[in-house]
Amino acid sequence: MLSIKNIKKLRDQFISPSLSISYKDPLHIVRGKGQYLYDRNGTKYLDAINNISHVGHCHPKVIETLYEQSKTLNTNTRYLHENIVLYAQELINRLPAHLQVCYFTNSGSESNDLALRIARDYTNSNHTIVIEGAYHGHTSATIEVSPYKYDGPGGKGKATYIHPVPMPDAYRGSWRGSNADILEYYVGHVDSILDSLNRGGEQVSAFISESILGCGGQILFPEGFLSLANDKVRDVGGLCIADEVQIGFGRVGSHFWGFESENTVPDIITMGKSMGNGHPLSAVVTTQEIAQKFNNGMEYFNSFGGNPVSCAVGRTVLEIIEKEKLQENAYLIGKYLIKELNDLKIRHNLIGDIRGRGLFLGIELIRDHENMVPAASEAEEIVNHMKDRGILVSTDGPNHNVIKIKPPMIFTKKNADQLLDTLDQLLIKKKYNSLT
Amino acid sequence: MLSIKNIKKLRDQFISPSLSISYKDPLHIVRGKGQYLYDRNGTKYLDAINNISHVGHCHPKVIETLYEQSKTLNTNTRYLHENIVLYAQELINRLPAHLQVCYFTNSGSESNDLALRIARDYTNSNHTIVIEGAYHGHTSATIEVSPYKYDGPGGKGKATYIHPVPMPDAYRGSWRGSNADILEYYVGHVDSILDSLNRGGEQVSAFISESILGCGGQILFPEGFLSLANDKVRDVGGLCIADEVQIGFGRVGSHFWGFESENTVPDIITMGKSMGNGHPLSAVVTTQEIAQKFNNGMEYFNSFGGNPVSCAVGRTVLEIIEKEKLQENAYLIGKYLIKELNDLKIRHNLIGDIRGRGLFLGIELIRDHENMVPAASEAEEIVNHMKDRGILVSTDGPNHNVIKIKPPMIFTKKNADQLLDTLDQLLIKKKYNSLT
Repeated sequence: MLSIKNIKKLRDQFISPSLSISYKDPLHIVRGKGQYLYDRNGTKYLDAINNISHVGHCHPKVIETLYEQSKTLNTNTRYLHENIVLYAQELINRLPAHLQVCYFTNSGSESNDLALRIARDYTNSNHTIVIEGAYHGHTSATIEVSPYKYDGPGGKGKATYIHPVPMPDAYRGSWRGSNADILEYYVGHVDSILDSLNRGGEQVSAFISESILGCGGQILFPEGFLSLANDKVRDVGGLCIADEVQIGFGRVGSHFWGFESENTVPDIITMGKSMGNGHPLSAVVTTQEIAQKFNNGMEYFNSFGGNPVSCAVGRTVLEIIEKEKLQENAYLIGKYLIKELNDLKIRHNLIGDIRGRGLFLGIELIRDHENMVPAASEAEEIVNHMKDRGILVSTDGPNHNVIKIKPPMIFTKKNADQLLDTLDQLLIKKKYNSLT
Repeated sequence: MLSIKNIKKLRDQFISPSLSISYKDPLHIVRGKGQYLYDRNGTKYLDAINNISHVGHCHPKVIETLYEQSKTLNTNTRYLHENIVLYAQELINRLPAHLQVCYFTNSGSESNDLALRIARDYTNSNHTIVIEGAYHGHTSATIEVSPYKYDGPGGKGKATYIHPVPMPDAYRGSWRGSNADILEYYVGHVDSILDSLNRGGEQVSAFISESILGCGGQILFPEGFLSLANDKVRDVGGLCIADEVQIGFGRVGSHFWGFESENTVPDIITMGKSMGNGHPLSAVVTTQEIAQKFNNGMEYFNSFGGNPVSCAVGRTVLEIIEKEKLQENAYLIGKYLIKELNDLKIRHNLIGDIRGRGLFLGIELIRDHENMVPAASEAEEIVNHMKDRGILVSTDGPNHNVIKIKPPMIFTKKNADQLLDTLDQLLIKKKYNSLT
């Protein structure tokens, strides 16, 4: 085994400097099992952050499927194969009735890029409404719809056909939860864009949104926002894209998809990350009408997307989610975590807000409840201390002051208690609240 | 097992209509081994087309590696891991000394999309020179640099910052092999674009090219073209991107990379397809200087790219290429195929041109040697008849009249003979040459 020093040296030498590493003192992880990761010394870490390992690290059934299908056949989608059609059918059975046509890809970025292409072709327009702080991928086109990127470090600002609306953040946003008009306020921004496009004789193409803002800091929308915004966009001929890459497949607990919690249905849904439990697998699903319009003579072929191995893995992940009742688990453990974190919030002034749904949660840290000064360095310190105490979480949000929790879906009440106790101890010990 | 009728029905119902299937009477392939595929009835097919299954379908060593690493750990690149750094080192050891920094992605499309982003950031320009007929991927940005797509069915034409040059096709192009000035003629088109940009005060960003045009119809450049064109682009501050997605990893036989046959070196190289023998794996490699410039504050993180499983698979593929001497095999069998195909050409008027390098070959079919009328329907018919006789090939090129051969790299002389004999028999039987 290479020494940590040598791995770091080779990484500095050969790997893109644009790729950062977690924690001040990086981990050399060599093994994973369930909700745990193990470093080179055998130290065990509770993984409370890896939402890709949806059914748990190295789930034996996923690996057996991967192995068996890899031994049998892995080829492209130019031949008939059962796996792709059965997997598509199983995904579609879990979606609203009008979402009926699958495209398989290799990453959430590829899926969102394709979704934009489909919407732009359908509407013959590229005017896209996005939410500030949102992230939808790393391809050229998905960075364009990601304010988190184009307005962040190294970003080049927005393209003329991108129309951001403020994050409908009931905690920190320009209009807060206490205000009765919050819904009208945020939807009003969508209205303004649609009006402005209309006045200019321009067609809107799409509104792309997650149902809980991930990189935005686990922001839940004011009730009714997404549904109303989607309706307004559709009323003028635009399409609604639900980016379920982070939160799909039962993570929100109450529902299988995030948009279902928001009482709305998209025209196009994109999925990825957890879909293959780490195997590169993602998809776009849309309606027959939209798919037929996109079938304009230009082929969409993806060399790896939809291959028999990826589809076998995807089917097994779906089966495990159901058999192991992981959506129910996300619901129960999520509810428990939210309740207990709110108890911590009462006792620790550093905690400003607890939010999220199921196993997709955010803890916003602030230095001061009046001015809500983001406690970014404290959040970073806590995340590093949590790691030293065997728990992996990370930060997110435009101010880097939101501790995010999105563990494998097999996370138990005992795991939750360990996380809560450790966080509590750290907050007591460090007396962060003396700052307020 | 589902009936073929049912698989087709489900495919029609649930899978994107933009995804076509091979052959008039599609194959239901259920098993692969080495250079062979087997359908539901156990019928064996010689695979002479699948360049993704580089070291052979279901290579046991690749599968063992995939299985072992999947059982141990599959996580993202935010932790230290040996596989990513050792794989990067091994790739870089096979590249010219100045190409030193790796970015891992999940598909050739993601790689080319990233390469464009890197070049555009470096030059602060998006003026990109492309070759007519070229294909570089299915993301929004890569379709923009793919005349095969934007000028093909459903295409929306070229963007203002895309500058196509004619395919330097010595067989069918507007300047042919017999002309001594062929090099100057085609490079002259690059000159014109650079002059025109210069007059307009515009900076060129990049020239992106394969070293043998794949979708263009296995076109080899006139000697010196790529080297001279690259130099001219670099002379005015542009970058050269070598798209090795189709032909990298020894396929051209004489060299490990296609650009080496052209006696030039790129500033950025993209790779994919064969890299993981079917496992979604691809990469971009560039210089330290370019990578440092791109490190402008914007992170490049790829959820799956560079994970321990993908990198383990990639390392094993490299090891197999070397141990099984697959580059040498591509060289020898390619040379043999070219010689024998040229013999067929003498005997069959339908064959207009034999070209390519190693195991990346094209057979251009024409109805008439004077007017070179593309024999597209004949090519399609032959490909379907070859399939009925147990050999899988396909067509390519802007006129769909080029039969392409790009088999797994373990293709033997006996396999080559089977292909040659079958093709010969078909050409005799069908008396296509009576058309001339």
